[in-house]
Amino acid sequence: MTDLIDGNAAADVVVPSVDAAPDSQTVGWRHRHLLDVDELSTADLDLVMRTTDAMREVLARPIAKVPALRGRNVTILFYEASTRTRVSFEVAARNLSADVTNIAAQTSSVSKGESLVDTIRTVEALGARMLVMRHAVSGAPYLAAEVFGGSVLNGGDGWHAHPTQALLDLYTMRSRLSGGSVAGRKIVILGDVLHSRVARSNIWALTAAGADLWLCGPTTLLRGFEAWAGRGAAGGRRFHVTADVDRALRDADVVMALRIQRERMSSGLLPSLREYAARYGLTAARLALAQPGALVMHPGPMNEGVEIAPEVAAGAQSVITDQVTNGVAVRMAMLYLLAGVSAAGAAP
Amino acid sequence: MTDLIDGNAAADVVVPSVDAAPDSQTVGWRHRHLLDVDELSTADLDLVMRTTDAMREVLARPIAKVPALRGRNVTILFYEASTRTRVSFEVAARNLSADVTNIAAQTSSVSKGESLVDTIRTVEALGARMLVMRHAVSGAPYLAAEVFGGSVLNGGDGWHAHPTQALLDLYTMRSRLSGGSVAGRKIVILGDVLHSRVARSNIWALTAAGADLWLCGPTTLLRGFEAWAGRGAAGGRRFHVTADVDRALRDADVVMALRIQRERMSSGLLPSLREYAARYGLTAARLALAQPGALVMHPGPMNEGVEIAPEVAAGAQSVITDQVTNGVAVRMAMLYLLAGVSAAGAAP
Amino acid sequence: MTDLIDGNAAADVVVPSVDAAPDSQTVGWRHRHLLDVDELSTADLDLVMRTTDAMREVLARPIAKVPALRGRNVTILFYEASTRTRVSFEVAARNLSADVTNIAAQTSSVSKGESLVDTIRTVEALGARMLVMRHAVSGAPYLAAEVFGGSVLNGGDGWHAHPTQALLDLYTMRSRLSGGSVAGRKIVILGDVLHSRVARSNIWALTAAGADLWLCGPTTLLRGFEAWAGRGAAGGRRFHVTADVDRALRDADVVMALRIQRERMSSGLLPSLREYAARYGLTAARLALAQPGALVMHPGPMNEGVEIAPEVAAGAQSVITDQVTNGVAVRMAMLYLLAGVSAAGAAP
Repeated sequence: MTDLIDGNAAADVVVPSVDAAPDSQTVGWRHRHLLDVDELSTADLDLVMRTTDAMREVLARPIAKVPALRGRNVTILFYEASTRTRVSFEVAARNLSADVTNIAAQTSSVSKGESLVDTIRTVEALGARMLVMRHAVSGAPYLAAEVFGGSVLNGGDGWHAHPTQALLDLYTMRSRLSGGSVAGRKIVILGDVLHSRVARSNIWALTAAGADLWLCGPTTLLRGFEAWAGRGAAGGRRFHVTADVDRALRDADVVMALRIQRERMSSGLLPSLREYAARYGLTAARLALAQPGALVMHPGPMNEGVEIAPEVAAGAQSVITDQVTNGVAVRMAMLYLLAGVSAAGAAP
Repeated sequence: MTDLIDGNAAADVVVPSVDAAPDSQTVGWRHRHLLDVDELSTADLDLVMRTTDAMREVLARPIAKVPALRGRNVTILFYEASTRTRVSFEVAARNLSADVTNIAAQTSSVSKGESLVDTIRTVEALGARMLVMRHAVSGAPYLAAEVFGGSVLNGGDGWHAHPTQALLDLYTMRSRLSGGSVAGRKIVILGDVLHSRVARSNIWALTAAGADLWLCGPTTLLRGFEAWAGRGAAGGRRFHVTADVDRALRDADVVMALRIQRERMSSGLLPSLREYAARYGLTAARLALAQPGALVMHPGPMNEGVEIAPEVAAGAQSVITDQVTNGVAVRMAMLYLLAGVSAAGAAP
Repeated sequence: MTDLIDGNAAADVVVPSVDAAPDSQTVGWRHRHLLDVDELSTADLDLVMRTTDAMREVLARPIAKVPALRGRNVTILFYEASTRTRVSFEVAARNLSADVTNIAAQTSSVSKGESLVDTIRTVEALGARMLVMRHAVSGAPYLAAEVFGGSVLNGGDGWHAHPTQALLDLYTMRSRLSGGSVAGRKIVILGDVLHSRVARSNIWALTAAGADLWLCGPTTLLRGFEAWAGRGAAGGRRFHVTADVDRALRDADVVMALRIQRERMSSGLLPSLREYAARYGLTAARLALAQPGALVMHPGPMNEGVEIAPEVAAGAQSVITDQVTNGVAVRMAMLYLLAGVSAAGAAP
């Protein structure tokens, strides 16, 4: 297992000077789109982490803005309701001085029966150069990327992927764990793994980074993941799957609770919220099984009292608010890196 | 009753130079939040009025913008539908060169069961430095202010308070009444006082400014206000409460009609819109009871033909449109004054 | 029929220098509003076309922005759901460095029973200097123009008019047809003409420009247009109306398919979408009746497989995506030209 992406990675990685416009030649980023984490090498991940460091530094300034993407159109096309991810991308783009166009497709004439391909072509013709997209259908951003002339950033597609979430999770762990690396650390993702794009993208990121990854939840919400764990991600990067919450949490370095969608209850996959909370909720008692000082994470929004106890969510070990701020920084980093490739690309 | 806030107030009040970034040391503003008018001293009110004068001057420029809040994030989090107040804050913030993030919480994933405290923490972690908030629950902005690291501006909470509305009302009266003061003037608030946050915030502002304040409406819509009037606001600033519309309007200097919410009809508090219009609507005949040239005001949006006759709303005595423009100027003033305190505060 | 608006028009028309703020004296534009195309002279149309050329040149720059309207408030007030027109105006305004305020009136408190006149007065008092408006009622923007102190741009009113669509259609044809002119060219508008504001505005623009215009669709969707064609537009500019699709398409230079609104089906005006597609859909076989290389246009959003076949919409003759980009440029041109008049007008 390589470990290039820890805090002591190769010294020859260029740290971008993010105040200026991006330039792929200097920075060494090659991808035009961000569709999922599985396409990123460990060197790519390391570059994202270092660029995010630079963006955190920007966020700490009195005026948290750089002119890097001045005048560039970033369009945020969301087919599912979202506030935190949408606002995070919007703030990230504006912090880079981009012009942001918001399209909430579920409430707009985009839904007048127009095909996705037509919508993407229209959005590009309207001036979009970078397209952040959320869609209920897994794979929709891949179709968009085939049609769109600029860069597509996947902001969540069905149960499939949520790459910026996995990147911000990785960044948060690296910045909080001693040694600045997740390699060899026991990381538990707890909850409704089956329906979670967050879990799937984290499998790619965390196994690539050498973590000892455990997925835990009711067996009905782990379907298919045992087989995947047996094969390993990317043809061999193994991880663990268990319904035994005590076994999963014991000596963990990080525990990430996933949101329980209340609408799953009716599907028969879960008996009741109360029973879920009793058997899998991240309580202080359960957290005590983990390492002292283990990190508590959650992608939000939380159902406090269900998948996580309020005192754990707000406790000293929680880095949930830090995840949110890191999300802005990671999205700034991704917009910056992708913009360098687009700028170097074909005619506008 | 002090009268510091009239047009001839103490000459040693500093008039802010609003083109530059705010600085609380120079300006002398102390409050971190704007939750209601009751927390403002007459000196505070005077400073708001003078800063609003400066903002009106900015609005009269060909390019109505100053760089005072450049790069600062103002987040507008509204849990109730609103256009005029939301747009007013948005325009105010942009006129100060701030970056504005709009979150319409009633249509967003903020409503996915997340607690208000979690939402406030998330919004701050996303970069909000000033938070304008409207909520259906009285007191919600007070809870937000306990959690939020920046400044909270109450954009209306339940029936409780709408401080920027009261401030723009006060500014409008001062700028239109001869002598530039409301002290000793007879001011009538007419209509559904019971459910009105506008009325409640105006009670604080107008009694502090020494007005002869009258609340008038059907007795069912004045419940509790007689007792309050007897005690007086802030421990002794008396006002009048009556269901006798002729008595209220006689010799009035200002008449402010309140919006009748059509949905109140079903509650049994009002017989019908038609009967309300007949008995309490502000008609030309009723307005004739007031002083010649008495000001006609309304917080909007109006039900013309119900609480106010169209010819009165659009008549020569109406300053309703002026209220709207003053609303932008007052909100610019409040954002400016609060930003000075935040900038002087703790770590970002 | 004059032909001033072709590519070889009078050389003394001033081409605006669109990087600077607009100035009506220099540019020679006289209208304060854009309500429909019928009010524009051929010289006006020519100026719009030339200004749009300049805007296309701006769009081709790496940073597609000019400071022409810096600090000016453009308010987009839409009473009907729309994405493409709303975003097109928003991007156009931002490309001119204007500040954009979006008001989606159908989901906002604007719909709390407030009259249109009150809303317009409020929007102006909030700072709007240019108002882009879409409304389900034909004529609503004319009422707004009587009240509003700045410039009103009609973004579509009922079945009546959609002037910027007609202007972008004209621009697209001129830029794609050999000779740079529509004069004498056979142009077919195919589909639901009856309910189409796009068709109505195009009648004014295309007959003014000397085109050989044909309207074609089921007779139930052409009601009233035969009589209009007999009289001619503007007191004599004739055009053709027919239900015979083969006759309409034969030797056409341009075919513009109109969107079929699915909700029209229930009205009894159309038998079924399937039958409509079979009899009037723009298929490859039908397009073969037109001139080789005839342009295919559609105002969007498309129902592919109904009014237009997917292979035609995406085929080599389609200029549909070009229409979208030209829409941004035309709207930049109109905002620019109207702003010059407003700036030269009365007090702010």
